[in-house]
Formats: sequence, structure tokens, C-alpha cells
Amino acid sequence: MSKNSTPWIQTVTLTPPSLKDNTADADRLIQALKSRLDTPVIDIDLDLLKILPVVLRHSRFNIRCILFKEKQHWVLTGITDAKDAIPIAGLAVDLGTTRVVLRLLDLATGRTLAESAFDNPQEVIGPDILARIHFAEKENGLKKLNKLIISGLNNAIEKLCESQHISPEQIYALSLAGNTTMTHLFLGLDPRWIIREPYIPVVNNPGVMTADALGVQVNPQARVLIFPNIGSYFGGDLVAGILYSEIHKKEQTCILVDVGTNAEVVLGNENWLIACAGAAGPALESSVTRMGMTAGPGVIDRIAVEPDTLEFNTHIIDDLPPKGICGSGVIDLAAQLFLTGMIDIQGNLVAAVCGPKIKEIDGLLHLVVVPAEKTATGFDLTISQADLDSLIRSKAAMYTILETLTDSVGITPQDLESFFVAGTFGAFINPESAISIGMLPDLPLDRYKPLGNSSLGGATLALQSDKYHPEIGQIRDRITYMELNVNQNFMNRFSAAKFLPHTNTRLFPSVKTVQNKK
Amino acid sequence: MSKNSTPWIQTVTLTPPSLKDNTADADRLIQALKSRLDTPVIDIDLDLLKILPVVLRHSRFNIRCILFKEKQHWVLTGITDAKDAIPIAGLAVDLGTTRVVLRLLDLATGRTLAESAFDNPQEVIGPDILARIHFAEKENGLKKLNKLIISGLNNAIEKLCESQHISPEQIYALSLAGNTTMTHLFLGLDPRWIIREPYIPVVNNPGVMTADALGVQVNPQARVLIFPNIGSYFGGDLVAGILYSEIHKKEQTCILVDVGTNAEVVLGNENWLIACAGAAGPALESSVTRMGMTAGPGVIDRIAVEPDTLEFNTHIIDDLPPKGICGSGVIDLAAQLFLTGMIDIQGNLVAAVCGPKIKEIDGLLHLVVVPAEKTATGFDLTISQADLDSLIRSKAAMYTILETLTDSVGITPQDLESFFVAGTFGAFINPESAISIGMLPDLPLDRYKPLGNSSLGGATLALQSDKYHPEIGQIRDRITYMELNVNQNFMNRFSAAKFLPHTNTRLFPSVKTVQNKK
Repeated sequence: MSKNSTPWIQTVTLTPPSLKDNTADADRLIQALKSRLDTPVIDIDLDLLKILPVVLRHSRFNIRCILFKEKQHWVLTGITDAKDAIPIAGLAVDLGTTRVVLRLLDLATGRTLAESAFDNPQEVIGPDILARIHFAEKENGLKKLNKLIISGLNNAIEKLCESQHISPEQIYALSLAGNTTMTHLFLGLDPRWIIREPYIPVVNNPGVMTADALGVQVNPQARVLIFPNIGSYFGGDLVAGILYSEIHKKEQTCILVDVGTNAEVVLGNENWLIACAGAAGPALESSVTRMGMTAGPGVIDRIAVEPDTLEFNTHIIDDLPPKGICGSGVIDLAAQLFLTGMIDIQGNLVAAVCGPKIKEIDGLLHLVVVPAEKTATGFDLTISQADLDSLIRSKAAMYTILETLTDSVGITPQDLESFFVAGTFGAFINPESAISIGMLPDLPLDRYKPLGNSSLGGATLALQSDKYHPEIGQIRDRITYMELNVNQNFMNRFSAAKFLPHTNTRLFPSVKTVQNKK
Repeated sequence: MSKNSTPWIQTVTLTPPSLKDNTADADRLIQALKSRLDTPVIDIDLDLLKILPVVLRHSRFNIRCILFKEKQHWVLTGITDAKDAIPIAGLAVDLGTTRVVLRLLDLATGRTLAESAFDNPQEVIGPDILARIHFAEKENGLKKLNKLIISGLNNAIEKLCESQHISPEQIYALSLAGNTTMTHLFLGLDPRWIIREPYIPVVNNPGVMTADALGVQVNPQARVLIFPNIGSYFGGDLVAGILYSEIHKKEQTCILVDVGTNAEVVLGNENWLIACAGAAGPALESSVTRMGMTAGPGVIDRIAVEPDTLEFNTHIIDDLPPKGICGSGVIDLAAQLFLTGMIDIQGNLVAAVCGPKIKEIDGLLHLVVVPAEKTATGFDLTISQADLDSLIRSKAAMYTILETLTDSVGITPQDLESFFVAGTFGAFINPESAISIGMLPDLPLDRYKPLGNSSLGGATLALQSDKYHPEIGQIRDRITYMELNVNQNFMNRFSAAKFLPHTNTRLFPSVKTVQNKK
């Protein structure tokens, strides 16, 4: 096998049958494949058996086999003449609550052919998991939710394939990583017990299913690997993220933070993995998603404040008049406001420093970031005291979770060797700003490693080699899920983290405000 | 597990989930089943996952599980409340070229509930394998043949279930044994290469499939175990027969003879198995099936000849006026004719002895067995010289095969410890008569053991315990298929066997004709 090839495609030349060797077609083929793949069992679906003898004879017993791995055994999912040059594709899917991302791969090499994304069509039912689960409990609710995501996926697959001039029939393997509820809705499984004590999914290890059984319109023999869940609040998307980050193989302890619709944190190394999620999620996600908007044309993604003039230097995507600020911009802004003394250590706007930039609207203080005459909307682009308070709670929650998790294993956030930040959050935030407000610990900047879409990354790995399949199970089995008890200790930590950057400034030696510097 | 129970039904009481043990439903169940069945993998179909949480909670986690084994792993095929008393059934099928026999079992105990049989509806296409294979090559021919047998089976299943007041949905496991061509037509696989050099089946080991994939209308999760073929002329029916005869576990060498549409012979013991089939089949089957008719009301099944008066004493089923003679009757008749000197050692009618019983019809000698006035048809019931010649060829072929096969391992037919005779042939023939004409070797009568429908017997075992499943594979792997070369040596043996009982009368010391006795 060459360096750039996956085990899924095997080109085999069989000795043609003779009176001295009259083994049946299927058994002859399986025998040849078994020695290559070192496996005792290879299954062939009935539909494939039906075409096998003709393909074998037409190709003069020189064929290309498409295989996939199901739990302990292999399965033959397709056969073509070895001379057939038609590409064989795989599809990795990150099944998000709000957004679904697809990556089409060349299944022979594992290389990316194309990517696309679409909004989860279940959003018409409800924006969050809770709303969808409640809807699933209604008559035909589950069926409708399932149909929405399956149809959405089928449409996206068709378009993505069209862009590459291939047919969906050429997709022979899929891998899918999503949170527990999304995975249930995708499989058509009732999610109602996920949100009710004691919070029980129908299944944690769905394993590998046929595309046909799921209604996914690709090759009907195609197999779909579903990433396993750890529990109701800890889904296959994070298992995929861990696989991608490789923290489960690191000697030194590292952390993986994934802030999506939900916030999930995993701490660990090659020996152990500990995770928490869910409980503090809503607080964390609030400011970044409520105040800001998704990065795009006309959105401020970076902000600096001139220390002397207190002028805002904004970076606007595509250099258009601004219409809003995205998450990374909000964190930059808060950091700059704090460093220049425009907000105090509690996050309160300091009128004496801000001067005319402060306006009172409906009895609430607002800071004008871009005046009306320079915005795309014709209104002032502002940040309110309420927005700032919300951001402070978020960043405090984030830091408290990190501190609680590291403390539970006897280390501090400062001891982390690598700090992997997944998702859009990780891709766009400026770690320096996040450190300045005490959202992330004061580590040397090179320890922060943005991972991008780690869920999609993990799903991709599962299509690149079967060697990752046992790792998926090992990650799942090794993880200890820590319930974040919001007890007195947690609340004390949270209160201490509600200051900028922290009550204990020794934890953030690199953060220097204008006053400190003076 | 009690003595009278199979591994397929497991009643399990699970510890209900709690905050301290929030394993998913499916994983909780599989964990409990794994320890019982001592297996690393148990699969659950998606459709079953969909109802699992409700069944678990409705039954208060006290459920009855229906399982089956697929190659290396187990699969859960059904779940009910443990208090649910509805019977769970299995179905063993002997898929014959001319007749299909069904046996409905209680899957929990392995006990037979009912049996039925129907003529293979593919007979409208052609009576034999060859005709059907040629038809399969026509446009839609294979589809039509497949549909005929599947519909026929579905009808029979429905009726059989009705007779037991159960629904076909309650059938969760099937096993099916047929010859290679019938198995191919049942699976919808193209059989054309079976009859063409080098005689290659599409598949020898189809394994276990879902009833749904095959179109068999039972529980859609039901699994169907298909007995493996050894090759084109040696099917799963004989593998099932061997399993049932247990010759693969005997210390002493035994033989299994199955004369159905085809003739198959297996010789062996716990260490080796050697088989031959096909080549001499047509000769063997000819007389028994062409001359005789199937046993039934008004059919002569046993005949004795009064040595002094040469009167025929016939036993007629249901004591009606006779309309024909079945296979066992024909062999009885030939034996009696020989022993009384009415035919000579070459099988020729001896006019001097037969006297007025001989008639010439269309230039051919006939022996009147029952005169017209006593038959149901109003015509003489006769046996012609041509019929006798055909029978002699058949019996000679049979003996030659036995002799060739035993000789190939250095023993004689007389050395056989047990002589298993399967099928209708075995159930009805009188071994003494068969020995008298030299069709079967001159062994003490107690070594002859009729097996009945051994193919159905083997299929039944496969539904009674998974312990038989590896045996099926072992039988298949251990068998050496011997091509019966019709060479000079074979022809010499055949010529020697064309006398009654044999040229070498020392091989049949117990056979005493009237002349010998005098």
C-alpha cells in the first residue's frame, strides 16, 4: 500500500477459477482480501453478490474493491473493474445544532475534494436542543425532525457532488459526528430521556449503519460510522474533536476547549481524560453569540484602542461600513477597554475616561464603538453595560470551569502544555485579548493552538484509516465525565473570576493596564 | 439456562438507570447480554433501537430478548416485555428442487410446533436444475424464478403460522438448506456459472442475512442462516444432512447416502469427510423416480412373492385398489423377482418361471404385477424389461459409487460401521431388498439407519443452538469433494455390479435365491 492511500480501496487480481480450483466467486475474493486486511471476517451484502460474477468476468478477475470496517469485521461495499477510473468518495459530516458541515474526500487517498455547509433545517422547529426535544415528543414530531435533517443532508450531498462532477452513488463511506441529541434525531431515535433525570440516551455506541437504513442518498451499500456519545451532554462531536486534537496521545497534560452551541472542555493526556460540559455552557456562549454576529463582510473582527487618544482602530471584513461586531471583536474590545481604563476591574464603564463616547439609552449606559454616520445601519454601533456584564459572567464561567477541572487533578491552568481551542471561537479569537480579560489563563501565546472544526477533523480521520476506529472506542472508554456541581466552592471561584482579569492578579502577570504601566 | 432452552431467548432484568449509572439504554442492555453470551459484540438494528427505550420503561427494565448469531457476533433481533407470553418462533426450511418442507419451531425450547410442505413452484419453469438455470439466463428469468420460490415460501409460512394461531411476525430466525442452485435462486443470484466449466457458484458461504433483504415475510429483523455449499454439485442440503447424521463426530467410519433429485454420498468420521455427488446421480434416481410414484393412498409400497405359488402379496397404502408402485415397492419387487428366479442374474425376465404373468406389449416384455381387474386404473399394473434394465443400471451405479468411494480410502463397503440413508429413499426402502439386488452392501441390517429428511433435520439443529454453527463451517471446511471420474476402472466396477446381486457373489453372502437354497 502506498503512503498516500487508505485501506478502503484494494485492487486485487484473482487467479481465475479452474477445474482444480473451483472456489465460488465470493469466497475466492474474500480469501484474497482477508490476507491483505488481516481479518477473519469480510461480509458481502446480497446486492453486491448479485453483480459480483459479472464484474469479475468482465474485468478478467482484476477488480477494485471498496471496503469499510464495522466494529470487529470488514465489509465489502463496492466492486468495479480495476481499470474503472471513476473516483470513489467518502463524506465526513459535522452535524451541528445550528450548522452542518460536509467534507467530501477521495476515499482512495483520504484527500479533501470539496467542502460545504448548510444551516441545520431543524432550526425552523427551534434554535436549541431543548426546543427540538420537546417538539420530538409531539405526534410525528420526531419523524419530522428526522426528515428535516436527512433531506437537508441529501440536498447538500447532491449539490456538493454536483460541484465535483460525481454522482452521490460514488460515495461509499460516511462518518458523522454530532452531539448526543443531534445524533439521536439523525438516527430517528427518541431523545426525550436525554433531558430528564437521570439523563439517558437511547444509545451511546450506534456503530456503523448502512446509508440505506438511514435514508441517506448515497451508494446504498455505503456504510455510515456514527461517532459514539459519552452521555447525554457529551456527544460524538467532542469524541471526534479529541481524536483530532490527539490529546489522548500526549505525554503532557493538555486541554481542549470547544465553544459551539454548547461549551465542552476536555483535560487529559495519554493516560487519562476528564471532561465536563453543558452546565456552564449557556453562560459561556451567551455574550459571544448574543452580542456579536457571525464573522462576514461588514463585520468588525478586530479592534484596537489607541492608548493616548482612545480612538478605536477597527478591522472590518472586506473594508465595508460596519454593521456589527463578531465574537473575536467583542473580546478584543473588552480587553482594550480594560487595558486603557475605559472599564474598571468589575467591567463598569468609567465615564471619566470614556468621556463623550458614553451615551445613555433607555436609562442604560452605552459606549459608542462606531458613530451612526460611519455604520452601515445609520445607527450608532454600541456596547452596553449589560453586554459587558454578560461578557464578564461568561469569561468568569469559562475560567472557573478551567480552574475547577485542572484543580480536580491537582494542577493549575498555568500547567497546561497545550491549549487547543476548537471551533469558530478558536479560529478567530485573539488569545492575548482573551487572556487580558481573564477568560483564558495567562499562558505563553504559543501554547494556544486553534484547531478549527475539530469535530469535522475527527470525522475526516475516521475516513482516512481504520487505525483510528479503535482509538475512537478507546477515547470513549477512557473519558471520565465530571458533573460540574455548582456548589459553594464553584461559586467562590466564579466570584473571584468576575474581576478583570481576576481577583488574584498574580495569575495574570502578563496583563498590564495603562494604570499598571504608569 | 434450563436444559430445554435455546440461547436465542434471554430474559434479562436490568438495573434501572440512575444519576450514578447513566449508561445509555442500548449499551446497558448489551452489557448485560454480553456477559451471558460471552461475546465481545452484540449488534442492534436501528429499527429495534427505535422501540428499545419504551419497551425498557414499560416493562420496568424486565425484558425478553430474542437473539441470533451472525458469523462471529451476536445480533439482537427482538425485545418484548418479560411478561409477554406470545410465542417466539423459528422456521427450518429444506429447499428441495421438487419439494420444499417447512418446520415451525418454538424458538425458546427448540421444539417442533408444526410442519408443512409444498411443491417447489419453480416446477412450472422446469422440473430440474438444468432447465431452471437455462431459464434464469433469459431476460427477467432469474427474477421470476426468485419470485416464485419467495412467494411460495411466504404463502406456506402464512398458512403454517395460521394453523398455529401465530403471526409470521413472530418468526425471528430461519435456517435454510438447499442444493447450490436452489440456494442461488432463493438468494436471487445468477446460477449460470454453476453448470459451465469450471462450475463456479457465486457464493459458497452466504452466511446470515436479514429476512427483509430476502423478501421473506416474517419479522423484518429476523435472520436467515443459509447453509453453505461445498461447490456447484454439493449443496447446503448435504452439509445439513451431515450435521444431522453426526458422521463428522463418529470415531468409526460411516457413510451417508442421500438420494433425492440428485444422489449424494458422504463417507467419513471425526477426522475426515469425503464426498461425491452429481455425476452418477441421474442414473441413480432414474428407476426409482421414473418407474415408481410418490408414496400415497392407493400406492403399492411393499411387495412379497410367495416362493411356491409365485403369487404377489402387495401392501397398498390405505388398502385401496392400486394405481402404481412407489420406489420402495419397486426395489422390493426386483428383489423378490430375483430371489424367486423370475428374473435372472442379469435382470432378464425368465419366461419359463414367470409363465402367464409375462405379456408382450409393443414388442417389449412386461410382467403383470396386478391384473387390470384389480387396479384403480382398469389397466394392468406392469413392470417392463426396460424398467428392470434401468433399475439394474441404477443399482449398479449406486454400488459402484460406494465401492469407489470406500476404495479411495482403503476400506470396503462391508467395513462401514453405520450406513445412514437419508430422504424418502431411506425412509421407505427395505434394506434387505436393496441388499438382495446388490444396490446396498451386504451389511448386518442394524447398521442401516434411516435418517428421514436429514436436510431439514440439520436446518432444525441450527435453530436449536449456536453450538452447531461452528460445526457447519467445520463440516464445510473438512470435506474433500471427490470428482467421480468415469474412467476405465469405474466402468469395470460398474460392469461387475450390473449383475444380481453382483458378479462377485462373495460380497453378498446373505443373499440366497431359490436356486441357491435348493
